[in-house]
Amino acid sequence: MTSTENATRNGVDTATLFATLDAVKADTELAKFRFRATNRWLSGTHNQSTIHGFHGAKQEMTHRQPFTFDADHPPVLVGSDQGPTPVEYLLHALAACLTAGIANVAAARGLTLTEVSSTVEGDIDLLGILGLSDEVRNGYQNIKIDFTVRGDDPEKLRKVVEQSCRRSAVFDVLTNGVPVSVNVSTD
Amino acid sequence: MTSTENATRNGVDTATLFATLDAVKADTELAKFRFRATNRWLSGTHNQSTIHGFHGAKQEMTHRQPFTFDADHPPVLVGSDQGPTPVEYLLHALAACLTAGIANVAAARGLTLTEVSSTVEGDIDLLGILGLSDEVRNGYQNIKIDFTVRGDDPEKLRKVVEQSCRRSAVFDVLTNGVPVSVNVSTD
Repeated sequence: MTSTENATRNGVDTATLFATLDAVKADTELAKFRFRATNRWLSGTHNQSTIHGFHGAKQEMTHRQPFTFDADHPPVLVGSDQGPTPVEYLLHALAACLTAGIANVAAARGLTLTEVSSTVEGDIDLLGILGLSDEVRNGYQNIKIDFTVRGDDPEKLRKVVEQSCRRSAVFDVLTNGVPVSVNVSTD
Repeated sequence: MTSTENATRNGVDTATLFATLDAVKADTELAKFRFRATNRWLSGTHNQSTIHGFHGAKQEMTHRQPFTFDADHPPVLVGSDQGPTPVEYLLHALAACLTAGIANVAAARGLTLTEVSSTVEGDIDLLGILGLSDEVRNGYQNIKIDFTVRGDDPEKLRKVVEQSCRRSAVFDVLTNGVPVSVNVSTD
């Protein structure tokens, strides 16, 4: 099987992918992005975020439409279950980032995928956030993701997953943390 | 203004909130939760997660419906923009967790809210994930969230936001990181 830079593989336009890499190499300022979400409280633990605009490639851009997402707590956590919990969105973000990376890396390496599916689970002890223990952290104690990846050469596909982890933005943030600053206006 | 444990405030059923705390104090095993998402790759960087079941309070439970979410890259990042990027979901998760906490803490303290809104931004230099620099991390370099909170006593509301940060699962995970294990099946 031969591959060329002009091929679209796994739904990835590899020609454009390589051209984008070349463009960024030539002007590294293109790589600076600022992503954004706005959120408003609705009632109780129910709130809604909108994701639309972002800054990148030296310009203000928008997604093709505003995307809105509800978050809430389920009844067992005294919410009205109008959406997943915030911590479940973290699991989705992790699976989504690694999966996109797998598709890109496989395409760049000329490997065809037929399936990428995953289940991601996070263990959390709510004694932390409920303020009932000082020894239990607030967040997940661990996260586990199980992938099933099918397509070309299994050993090469395993290495694709490894490379996706090494180059994943969400994997980095979740495993290494990131500084977060919080500002409050009450005007 | 007086408050009683029976009041619903800010849409939070404080009586049930306090009863839940008492129940967990009496049986701390109730506090152990395992959240879950499943994801499947669709094409290119486009994939979809489903969030439905979770384990908590010593039983398997489900949200009132399966929630599904698409993630993708925008065209400037060689995707088809079928949903936000995975890293944007992290921003939503942070805003959602802190906002739910603000509503709960304010209610527990007998404070009425009229508005909680926020904008959250994350700076990322894609030289990392593109493999073009070993000195640039893959994930966000920093995240900033700006809240507008209105209602009772502004000084008390500021302290509510502080307490929400101190007890937020997502804030903890993002600022401190969490161990992530990755398993791959190619069968």
